[in-house]
Amino acid sequence: MATIGMKELAEKLKLSTATVSKALRDSYDISEKTKQRVLKLARELNYIPNAHASSLRGKKSKTIAVVIPEVTDSYFAQAINGVEAVAQQEGFHVLVYLTHEQVEKENVILQELLNGKVDGVLISVTCQSKDTSAINRLIQAGIPVVFFDRIFEGLGNAQITTNDFDASYHLTEHLIQQGCKNIGFLLFSESLNISTQRVNGYKSALRQHAFVIREDLLLTCSNHAMENQKAISKLLKMKDQPDALIASVEKLIIPAYLACAERNLAIPGDIKVAAFSNLMYANILNPAVTTVTQPAFKMGRTAAELLLGVLKGKHIEHDETKIVLPSILEIRTSSQR
Amino acid sequence: MATIGMKELAEKLKLSTATVSKALRDSYDISEKTKQRVLKLARELNYIPNAHASSLRGKKSKTIAVVIPEVTDSYFAQAINGVEAVAQQEGFHVLVYLTHEQVEKENVILQELLNGKVDGVLISVTCQSKDTSAINRLIQAGIPVVFFDRIFEGLGNAQITTNDFDASYHLTEHLIQQGCKNIGFLLFSESLNISTQRVNGYKSALRQHAFVIREDLLLTCSNHAMENQKAISKLLKMKDQPDALIASVEKLIIPAYLACAERNLAIPGDIKVAAFSNLMYANILNPAVTTVTQPAFKMGRTAAELLLGVLKGKHIEHDETKIVLPSILEIRTSSQR
Repeated sequence: MATIGMKELAEKLKLSTATVSKALRDSYDISEKTKQRVLKLARELNYIPNAHASSLRGKKSKTIAVVIPEVTDSYFAQAINGVEAVAQQEGFHVLVYLTHEQVEKENVILQELLNGKVDGVLISVTCQSKDTSAINRLIQAGIPVVFFDRIFEGLGNAQITTNDFDASYHLTEHLIQQGCKNIGFLLFSESLNISTQRVNGYKSALRQHAFVIREDLLLTCSNHAMENQKAISKLLKMKDQPDALIASVEKLIIPAYLACAERNLAIPGDIKVAAFSNLMYANILNPAVTTVTQPAFKMGRTAAELLLGVLKGKHIEHDETKIVLPSILEIRTSSQR
Repeated sequence: MATIGMKELAEKLKLSTATVSKALRDSYDISEKTKQRVLKLARELNYIPNAHASSLRGKKSKTIAVVIPEVTDSYFAQAINGVEAVAQQEGFHVLVYLTHEQVEKENVILQELLNGKVDGVLISVTCQSKDTSAINRLIQAGIPVVFFDRIFEGLGNAQITTNDFDASYHLTEHLIQQGCKNIGFLLFSESLNISTQRVNGYKSALRQHAFVIREDLLLTCSNHAMENQKAISKLLKMKDQPDALIASVEKLIIPAYLACAERNLAIPGDIKVAAFSNLMYANILNPAVTTVTQPAFKMGRTAAELLLGVLKGKHIEHDETKIVLPSILEIRTSSQR
């Protein structure tokens, strides 16, 4: 684009290109007065820095990326708002990248982010992600990465999670207290940390209350609502069929409700239902659904604070980088006797 | 009529192509008078900068921006998926920018996009947006812009909308047929094109059925759920209070339902409720809510196809650039006698 270059800017200002460059990068060894002169003319002459070139020279993009599976989930929609609240305050831009639960797409995005478009990355991985090499390349390139919610276990990175094990334990215990004996558990992915933690919490509560753990009550669902509804419907007519369902992710609420309706099972009379969900509509569903509500906004905010702290050169203690925020069990009609 | 190219524009203005190009890019060495002449004719003749013009900016980013108010609304979440479906197929990246309904934030984002980070922009403007200058700067810089859903009326740009007037007319008529006499209309913004069209469709249906139009039944809501609930609750206890509510945007469903509950009004027995909404949960609400469902995915897909077509240098016919896709009226329990 034929807007003015840095060289012409320098000529007009009777300064060296190096000085103009430093002024534009807000370098500390240029006086405030000179910076203002440079910026004023740059603005007047519509000087536009080349993003790629700038980043190669070390100029900060003042932009962070949020890489998430989707936005049709209330958790992620609310977490983004938390990220943006902090970023806006600190003068950072936020770019949202969606992986649509596809690990290939996630890898392409992470590769793309190596080019210096952003200063740092917040990520919640796809249900297929197992390989940490794309993440490691970013970190090696000096681009800090903070995980939230869906993390890689064992990777020594900053991460924000909720107490998935405990939350699932308490939810299962609540259903046992309501008289449920065969609690079905609807999983979304077997490899995700959040799935593992939630399944383990469920199993631990069952064991604690001397229930037999029935693997046939665990159902791994897919990304397709109709298929999930069919599979849940099938689960509901098996021998010793479930008298309760835990949807371990929000997107399983609709297929669970519709499968119960299909089988003429009244919620909560015939079957109790509860879900891990941040759904704003939880209160006005038919019936209102019991949820484990994650502090989504706060998790987004905390993840962004951690990342911007690192970008601003703050020293982060190792044990500060694993932050676990508590979820809330909100008991509504769907799970009550 | 095919859209005009830069060469034809130059011929008609009796200027050189270089001058027209510079004028369109708001170059400092073109006089303000010439710029205005060029822009005026470019707008009149619906000049859309093509791939060649864009390539003057240098290296392609193979990235497009989607600038939207929020992702907690099902319409936008589904529209993004439509955009991504096309972009992925064509090997383009999608960056999602959220304005959070703040025009200042929108302006900062649009200014930022001038730097060549993206090849083109898809936008649905905030409820506060009135000034077209930030959009015009992008277009002048050779970055094509396609509007979807929330557009600027009168701006000669490519745009994808739904038949908001007709959809609102038919919804209002449906409520009249169900015996409603005092239909309340919940607005989100008075300036947005979608609001105007929806209000006009509502008023037109009332007139057609010889109803008096009562301005006191129109309520302009804000971005705050609690405040909206209070205001709707107040509306529900006025003299000749509404026997039906139309929520003209999705986010007004929850406050409408909760306000009815607060006033002990049963839906649909005491009051009928319907909404413009793409809510996946519409079927399992208490009661299931009647909706005008927009073809959100298709709108996103069509907008992206149009933009990528322009980026690939395709000639776009003038009358192809205003695309109106039909919504569907889905009648459920909440509005039935």
